[in-house]
Amino acid sequence: MTTAVFTGSFDPFTIGHHSIVRRALPLFGRIVIGVGVNERKQCMLSADERVCRIARLYVGEPKIEVRAYSDLTTDFARRENAGFIIKGVRSVKDFEYEREQADINRMIGGPETVLFYAEPHLASISSSVVRELAHFGMDVSCFIPSVNEE
Amino acid sequence: MTTAVFTGSFDPFTIGHHSIVRRALPLFGRIVIGVGVNERKQCMLSADERVCRIARLYVGEPKIEVRAYSDLTTDFARRENAGFIIKGVRSVKDFEYEREQADINRMIGGPETVLFYAEPHLASISSSVVRELAHFGMDVSCFIPSVNEE
Amino acid sequence: MTTAVFTGSFDPFTIGHHSIVRRALPLFGRIVIGVGVNERKQCMLSADERVCRIARLYVGEPKIEVRAYSDLTTDFARRENAGFIIKGVRSVKDFEYEREQADINRMIGGPETVLFYAEPHLASISSSVVRELAHFGMDVSCFIPSVNEE
Amino acid sequence: MTTAVFTGSFDPFTIGHHSIVRRALPLFGRIVIGVGVNERKQCMLSADERVCRIARLYVGEPKIEVRAYSDLTTDFARRENAGFIIKGVRSVKDFEYEREQADINRMIGGPETVLFYAEPHLASISSSVVRELAHFGMDVSCFIPSVNEE
Amino acid sequence: MTTAVFTGSFDPFTIGHHSIVRRALPLFGRIVIGVGVNERKQCMLSADERVCRIARLYVGEPKIEVRAYSDLTTDFARRENAGFIIKGVRSVKDFEYEREQADINRMIGGPETVLFYAEPHLASISSSVVRELAHFGMDVSCFIPSVNEE
Amino acid sequence: MTTAVFTGSFDPFTIGHHSIVRRALPLFGRIVIGVGVNERKQCMLSADERVCRIARLYVGEPKIEVRAYSDLTTDFARRENAGFIIKGVRSVKDFEYEREQADINRMIGGPETVLFYAEPHLASISSSVVRELAHFGMDVSCFIPSVNEE
Repeated sequence: MTTAVFTGSFDPFTIGHHSIVRRALPLFGRIVIGVGVNERKQCMLSADERVCRIARLYVGEPKIEVRAYSDLTTDFARRENAGFIIKGVRSVKDFEYEREQADINRMIGGPETVLFYAEPHLASISSSVVRELAHFGMDVSCFIPSVNEE
Repeated sequence: MTTAVFTGSFDPFTIGHHSIVRRALPLFGRIVIGVGVNERKQCMLSADERVCRIARLYVGEPKIEVRAYSDLTTDFARRENAGFIIKGVRSVKDFEYEREQADINRMIGGPETVLFYAEPHLASISSSVVRELAHFGMDVSCFIPSVNEE
Repeated sequence: MTTAVFTGSFDPFTIGHHSIVRRALPLFGRIVIGVGVNERKQCMLSADERVCRIARLYVGEPKIEVRAYSDLTTDFARRENAGFIIKGVRSVKDFEYEREQADINRMIGGPETVLFYAEPHLASISSSVVRELAHFGMDVSCFIPSVNEE
Repeated sequence: MTTAVFTGSFDPFTIGHHSIVRRALPLFGRIVIGVGVNERKQCMLSADERVCRIARLYVGEPKIEVRAYSDLTTDFARRENAGFIIKGVRSVKDFEYEREQADINRMIGGPETVLFYAEPHLASISSSVVRELAHFGMDVSCFIPSVNEE
Repeated sequence: MTTAVFTGSFDPFTIGHHSIVRRALPLFGRIVIGVGVNERKQCMLSADERVCRIARLYVGEPKIEVRAYSDLTTDFARRENAGFIIKGVRSVKDFEYEREQADINRMIGGPETVLFYAEPHLASISSSVVRELAHFGMDVSCFIPSVNEE
Repeated sequence: MTTAVFTGSFDPFTIGHHSIVRRALPLFGRIVIGVGVNERKQCMLSADERVCRIARLYVGEPKIEVRAYSDLTTDFARRENAGFIIKGVRSVKDFEYEREQADINRMIGGPETVLFYAEPHLASISSSVVRELAHFGMDVSCFIPSVNEE
């Protein structure tokens, strides 16, 4: 049974993240979604709130687990016995950023990176865009996956 | 059992292609390597020669099959019952080219694309570079995976 | 009344091209669609066929004219008294290619370039992709704007 | 009469911004330059100072208005009845950033984005570069449009 | 005395190439400009004509030599005892293409690559653009360095 | 005797920086490594510590000097009589960032920029990655050049 991690701040978890998880799911026996907790970064949602929301979304999916972590992604993957890390790439900027991460992971004995292209209609959605819109009072529910939809 | 195709001209199959296949192998129950035959393109090696070389390379690996095809990659994947297509990306140019292909595949009901980064020391190796070096009489065996190595 | 040209091989004119024309239309008093005829390039459709198809598409739109041309785009724009050239950009590759063209146009006294982003769901559609799919016998009518739709 | 907004922090407004406004001007009946005020960002010039400088620059141009705003660009455009937003693109980084913004604007019913390439000799000039040079005591007047020049 | 090669088709040698040579000159004791001759490619100017034009341009510069070659650039550099190869980069596309070449050169024991950015006002000038303009009858002398200018 | 500067925060100086210095060394009579001191940025190592470590590394190399500076790189280069600035480029992001810097330097009379590609196996190593790994308690000595190795 192959295990992968899917990691990020997920502040908040968007329909873009959801699309990646759904499309990657057939490839793995188990996907552990890791909510990165970084005390140096200010967040809109607490770590607990983020874990809760994602867990609720995938409550009917036994192959998916959700967990917070606050150390290196490589260490998180090792604890979870994950040989793979799943990444969505939306742009050239993402492509280069994730290549750097993937190479460093390889150097320090971390997991292999598996990439999925963002679907075109989701390629401009990011947690930071959603936070920005929310900050200005917009209803951002259309960018957030709902439990019923799943 | 999840099936993926890994397609290309493979004229010739390089150590870069070999790296992608090896790293993708744990994710799939079966990988069908599809040697694209295009009568409009002039090749260094015949389709038979290309299929033969790759088949010999993976002779001990029951999960890998090798086959020539001359229609759309999407049709090839459908015949092989493959829900995924594996791609290695070496550069921003590859990233954009494969995104276009992946989007079109999605539109016409083709397989989902799964990407792997080229390993840094292999990122500049391509079939066309190898052909160019061979054309000028260089020994290119270091760019070609050998049966013994496997 | 500001005039712009929108030029290309349009072999064939796709729903991607159509999207750019429709979105640029409010900015100009007149758009002349220039079908580039290049005897060095082999085409799927004849120049006449290409002009005809586009003209039929915009038959009810008095601000749009369609014409073939076979010289420099800059000369075509000058003949049409067009101060602007409209371009759709789908990718980083397009962005860089059109920048080169725009700079050269500026150097030789040609029109100013105005860019529109491709809509995400159309960003992977190109004439060459459509030709490739048609070559393999696929029905490509979903990539071609229809008169009724307009 | 078509209205466009041209928005930014403009801290300060550079000869690069000026070039975009001048080149876009023939396409629109009215351009509203929106000075974005963001209390979370520390600025070199106050919002008033930025508005004043730009207004003085275009005092003889009746088609141009200047205004501060502190909400979403989309909301600013709506208040101004602007169907278009003008953007200058200087690099691949700009191209990708503005694509994200343009796509999000489209999703939330905002204005259509119209892009102009930076002129090559201005492509490396940005407000942040000018602020950096000023911080180190350099005379940056050559990067700032002067009223007389206009 | 450090030797570098500066290689290309130079069909024709443009003011962009000239800019790179002039700016690289202080770094090297000797620059050998290598005119690549490729019988598979159709050229506007003969190899002799290309060598002659460049030689005439640098007739007063004892550190510069001009020579045709038709094998691998690496072999040409070795014959000239050149430890470096000079490249101008105009765009992201150039950057990626030259990276591939530089990496391959390193693998096969070729020269080290030294890059110079194209000057912004020259970044869109290429031999192929000049050939295209010449094909349509334009006067392209402003893109070609003149002996007197040197 | 041609002088170049090689500047950065070097917090810390990595094997990637070391590779660039070693490869650039044959081209210059003297390389001054400038440790940028910026009181607005928080650093892992003090300026003194950074200068010391680099100086120790190149203690046997008479062509290399190390110095801290806290003004504009252009001013630092002028004080050192350096006509060139050496830069390593690891990615498209670096390429664009350094192009902006190089263009601005040219505008304000600063040094000419000479670029070297990062070696592929070093292309993902940066000071910030090393700091991040160190922050999480990893042994990062493999990313730092050692005196003995030199």
